[in-house]
Amino acid sequence: MEQSKIIGVMGGAIAAPGVQEAAYELGRLIAIEGWVLLNGGRSAGVMEASAKGAAECGGLTIGILPDDSAAHASDHITIPIVTGMGNARNIINVLSSHIVVACPGGTGTISEVALALKCGKTVILFNFDLGHIFENYRTSGQLCMAETPGAVIQTIKELWSREDMSIS
Amino acid sequence: MEQSKIIGVMGGAIAAPGVQEAAYELGRLIAIEGWVLLNGGRSAGVMEASAKGAAECGGLTIGILPDDSAAHASDHITIPIVTGMGNARNIINVLSSHIVVACPGGTGTISEVALALKCGKTVILFNFDLGHIFENYRTSGQLCMAETPGAVIQTIKELWSREDMSIS
Amino acid sequence: MEQSKIIGVMGGAIAAPGVQEAAYELGRLIAIEGWVLLNGGRSAGVMEASAKGAAECGGLTIGILPDDSAAHASDHITIPIVTGMGNARNIINVLSSHIVVACPGGTGTISEVALALKCGKTVILFNFDLGHIFENYRTSGQLCMAETPGAVIQTIKELWSREDMSIS
Amino acid sequence: MEQSKIIGVMGGAIAAPGVQEAAYELGRLIAIEGWVLLNGGRSAGVMEASAKGAAECGGLTIGILPDDSAAHASDHITIPIVTGMGNARNIINVLSSHIVVACPGGTGTISEVALALKCGKTVILFNFDLGHIFENYRTSGQLCMAETPGAVIQTIKELWSREDMSIS
Repeated sequence: MEQSKIIGVMGGAIAAPGVQEAAYELGRLIAIEGWVLLNGGRSAGVMEASAKGAAECGGLTIGILPDDSAAHASDHITIPIVTGMGNARNIINVLSSHIVVACPGGTGTISEVALALKCGKTVILFNFDLGHIFENYRTSGQLCMAETPGAVIQTIKELWSREDMSIS
Repeated sequence: MEQSKIIGVMGGAIAAPGVQEAAYELGRLIAIEGWVLLNGGRSAGVMEASAKGAAECGGLTIGILPDDSAAHASDHITIPIVTGMGNARNIINVLSSHIVVACPGGTGTISEVALALKCGKTVILFNFDLGHIFENYRTSGQLCMAETPGAVIQTIKELWSREDMSIS
Repeated sequence: MEQSKIIGVMGGAIAAPGVQEAAYELGRLIAIEGWVLLNGGRSAGVMEASAKGAAECGGLTIGILPDDSAAHASDHITIPIVTGMGNARNIINVLSSHIVVACPGGTGTISEVALALKCGKTVILFNFDLGHIFENYRTSGQLCMAETPGAVIQTIKELWSREDMSIS
Repeated sequence: MEQSKIIGVMGGAIAAPGVQEAAYELGRLIAIEGWVLLNGGRSAGVMEASAKGAAECGGLTIGILPDDSAAHASDHITIPIVTGMGNARNIINVLSSHIVVACPGGTGTISEVALALKCGKTVILFNFDLGHIFENYRTSGQLCMAETPGAVIQTIKELWSREDMSIS
């Protein structure tokens, strides 16, 4: 048995309808590719929408919960990982993902983008405008942009083929 | 889709051959029941043996790694959760498991038994003698003993049927 | 300026009057020696009593809080370290202490003794009977016993003089 | 004894000479005010410089270390808190500080600004340009700007007087 390809999908617990729709569609496409979706696990915003999309297509969904029980986990999370660590769990989200996709979000999502870049992960900003603060990572190719769920998937495939990216 | 039943299997990174054989067999039985096996993720001792047993029977295996990469994960772990938190990840092991099985181990395993009991989890000591320090939990039924892999599985089933134990 | 000598005092949030008195006296003696007292920070049991003893003698007291604010910190804690990590903070208690003293406690205290031994710290059991589970550490001298606050202090001094123990 | 006022000083482990000088001077002024300085604890960049400034003025300095020992702590840290949690310790930095000052830094510092704002802490950007991503916090007053060490101190005093800000 080989390790799964795990795609982290980050984004706001509060999200506009259009963002939720896009996250739902992204979850669907991730599952269709046979990849595992990992997110923050709660039944809100981008977490709920992306897990729902993936689960409805038979995908495996992992939620890294900040709480000390799974009581607030999304119903669409197959594997709730219960950390009891609050926001400290953000680092687990990014370390456990082979590639991190950041949907629009607030300070929590920004912290995850920053930590992912710091830990050497490739980050795809999915319609999430962060201005110029991470410009040097964009230049180096560690930070990518995508505007549709399909473009996110395409970017992931290109990253994996181009770099013969090993999962570790 | 419903949440999986997750059985945590703890035990020493250094383990006697007999302990490894028992952990391997326990992993097999967990997978055959359709449950998910969760452990500390590394390619050593009880972690390696229990993951191997489960993976060979097609089971899903989750490893909560102390390291900041999956480089030292067992090959039999399907989903490596990378925490980068060292021994602080022990609390995640127990919070994420519906029932904790403790095979013989050292200080790390003892810390997990203690934390699991503190967090209200039922713990099954699988040939792991801890003397009398948790005697009150044994009296209350939160701490159980089992001597064979089959007896561990039987105990889990009894716990779930008797208590109509909800997974949360 | 040199680093402080930090003595970790662990023990139950619920503690018998005699245990609290002993913890209070131990806190006093630690402060009189000019050492820093570190504990779990809350206003209960051994934490409250040991911090009170140290603070009343002008000692510096550090509390590693499980909560995400200092609202439940003991009034006798000078420096509350707010982790928001629940029981995961137990590892910080032991890693940040040069020597760990364990007063009688429950599962939380036992997890701290186990983690401290795992991390190579010397542990002094202060009237805390753990049976034989850590017997090999007692044989090697990493686990010591003491029955009075004065004996704890004496043991710490002997450890530091004998081993010319560096603080790191 | 009352709790100390703790000022968190964040910033890059790699820092330009001018940034280090400013961090050193800020550390001095914090100590002169009688406040405690808290940072990431290592002997590099803004951490080293700010701790040196504070320690030379007799201030108490706390370092929240990512490592599992104090071996890499700055010599100017009085109280090393050893977490063994890598970047997960960033959340402790901000939760334990009453006010967070962010000197120029990279992804780690940005993650700390984001987490601090998320946790309701007031953040002072000290010559650290983050563009417009936290604009709404600037409007609400939770995010302030300062260009000199003296202005940082002045801002902290105004915040405390204006809000009669309680420490918790």
